[in-house]
Amino acid sequence: MLNDIVKNLLKEVSGIAEIPANAAFNIRNNSKSEGRHSTENIDIVPKEGGSGLDIYVKPFTKNENVHIPALITQDGVSEVVYNDFHIGEGAEIEIIAGCGIHNCGCDDSVHEGIHRFFLGKNSKVVYIEKHIGEGDGSGKRIINPQTHVEAEENAYIEMDTVQLKGVDSTKRVSSAKLGPGATIVIKEKIMTHGHQTAETSFDVSLDGAGSSAKLISRSVARDFSRQLFRSKIIGNTDCYGHSECDAIIMDNGVVAAEPEIIANHVDASLVHEAAIGKIAGDQLVKLMTLGLTEKEAEAQIINGFLK
Amino acid sequence: MLNDIVKNLLKEVSGIAEIPANAAFNIRNNSKSEGRHSTENIDIVPKEGGSGLDIYVKPFTKNENVHIPALITQDGVSEVVYNDFHIGEGAEIEIIAGCGIHNCGCDDSVHEGIHRFFLGKNSKVVYIEKHIGEGDGSGKRIINPQTHVEAEENAYIEMDTVQLKGVDSTKRVSSAKLGPGATIVIKEKIMTHGHQTAETSFDVSLDGAGSSAKLISRSVARDFSRQLFRSKIIGNTDCYGHSECDAIIMDNGVVAAEPEIIANHVDASLVHEAAIGKIAGDQLVKLMTLGLTEKEAEAQIINGFLK
Repeated sequence: MLNDIVKNLLKEVSGIAEIPANAAFNIRNNSKSEGRHSTENIDIVPKEGGSGLDIYVKPFTKNENVHIPALITQDGVSEVVYNDFHIGEGAEIEIIAGCGIHNCGCDDSVHEGIHRFFLGKNSKVVYIEKHIGEGDGSGKRIINPQTHVEAEENAYIEMDTVQLKGVDSTKRVSSAKLGPGATIVIKEKIMTHGHQTAETSFDVSLDGAGSSAKLISRSVARDFSRQLFRSKIIGNTDCYGHSECDAIIMDNGVVAAEPEIIANHVDASLVHEAAIGKIAGDQLVKLMTLGLTEKEAEAQIINGFLK
Repeated sequence: MLNDIVKNLLKEVSGIAEIPANAAFNIRNNSKSEGRHSTENIDIVPKEGGSGLDIYVKPFTKNENVHIPALITQDGVSEVVYNDFHIGEGAEIEIIAGCGIHNCGCDDSVHEGIHRFFLGKNSKVVYIEKHIGEGDGSGKRIINPQTHVEAEENAYIEMDTVQLKGVDSTKRVSSAKLGPGATIVIKEKIMTHGHQTAETSFDVSLDGAGSSAKLISRSVARDFSRQLFRSKIIGNTDCYGHSECDAIIMDNGVVAAEPEIIANHVDASLVHEAAIGKIAGDQLVKLMTLGLTEKEAEAQIINGFLK
C-alpha cells in the first residue's frame, strides 16, 4: 500500500518501516488515514471530518505503545490535526508521534498538530516526537506542534522532541498544568540551518504540592538560521522547577533565550540556566590534535551535544 | 545648617555626616540645593530650574569622589531629577549618589532620578547608590531610579546599588551601550517587606568587540512583598555577558525573574542563571545546632546573602 517515499519517511519519523502487525497505530498521509488499528487496551477513534483522533488508554495498561505518525508527501498541503490522549489511571504507555514532510513542489506544506494529554492518576507516559523535512522543492516545510498536558495526582510524562533537519519554519508551543506529585520532563533537541526559523515556548504551572518540572533544551543554529527559546515556570505551591537551555551558534546563526520563573509560594524552588555561545576553541583544538580536521571536530562535538 | 533628621539621613545614604570640606558635592533636600562645591577637576553645574546637574570630570582626574545625595524629608514632595555625568578620557572616579526619604506625613513622597553617564575612553567609574525609606507616616516612600550608560573604548563602570528597607515602591531601570573593550558590572541588593513592591530592569547592548557585562542581583522578599527582576543582554559582536539573579523568598513573598539573552553574533558568549527559593532547611538546622534560635539563624543567613 505504501510507496517508497512514504515508507522511508515513516521509518525516519517513527522508526517503523511498515504498518505494524498488532500494535495500536494510525498512519496519516496527506490528511488521510493510510491505516488504523486499535487493541484491547488502546482505542483509537477518529474525530469527525478527519480532523484528528481520540486515543483512549484503559486504566492499568502496561508495556504497550501507540504509533501515530503524520506524513505529508505532496506540496500545497495545509492541515490542522487535533489528537487527544485520554490516559487511564495507572496506565504506562509509550506514544510515538512525529511529522515528516517530503516536499518536492513549489507550494508550502504545513502541518499543525495540536495534542492534548489528559493523564489519569499515577499514569506514566513517554511521548516521542520527531520532525523531519525532506525533498528538494522550493515549497516550504512548516511544522507547528502544540502539546498541552493536564496531569492528575502523581502522573508522569516525559516528552522527547527532536528536529534536526529540513524543517523551514516551526513554532512549538507546550503547556502543562500539574496536580499533586505530578512530574513533567521535556527534552528538546533542535538544529536549524539555511534560513530556517524555530520558536519554542514552554508554559508550566506547578499547581499541586510536590509537583515538578524539568525542561532541557539543546539547540544548534547554523548558517543564517534563527531560534527563539521561551519558557515560563510558575510555582504556586511546594514544588520544584528547573529549566535549562544550551545553544551553540555557528556561522551567522542567531539565538535568543527568554526564560521566566515565578515563585508564588514560599516552598516553590525554581532554577533557570541558559548559555549561548560557539563551540569552545580548546575543544576543537583537542580533537584536531587527535587527527581530525576542523570540520570533523565540529561535527563530532555537535553530535555529542545533541546526542 | 542641616537639622538632625537631614544629617542622619545624609549619613545613611552617603556615609557622610556633614557637608564635606573640599570634596565635590551637591546636597539636594526637598528639591533644593543645601550646598554645592566644585573642585579643580570636577565641575558641578546646575541645570535650569533646579531640575538636576551636569557633572564634568576632567580627563585623567584620579582618586577623587563626588557626593550627590538627594534627600526628601517632607511628605507630598514629588520630583524628577536629571543628572548627567560627563567623564573625561582616562579619569578614575567614585560617585556616591543615593536617595533617602523620611516621610512622617500622610501624602506620598516620590523621587525619580534619571542619571546618564557618558564615559570617555579608558575612564573608570565606581558608582554607589543607596536607597532608604524612613519615617512613620502613612504617605508612601517611592524611589524610581534610572541609569543610562554610554561607554567608549575600554571604559569601565561598576554600579553597586542597595535598597534594604523602607522603600514602599521602586521601579529601577538601567541601560548600557558598550563600545569596544568596555565593561559594566552591576551589583544589586534588594530586600522588601510589608506590602512593598520592587521592579528591576536591565538592558545591556554589547556593541563593541571585547565588551563585557556582569549583572549580579541578590534579593530577599519577605512578608507580602513582590519583586520582579528583568534583564536583557544583547551580544552584537565578540563579547561576554553574564547575568545572575538569586532570590530568597520568605513568608508570603513573591518573586519573578525574566532574564533574556540574545546572541546576534557567533562570537557572543552569553550566560544566565536564576534561582528562587526559601532558605535551605539544612542551613537553618546547622546554625540552630550551634545555639541560635530559628529567627537568629534566618537573620544570619540573610545578612550573609546580602553582604
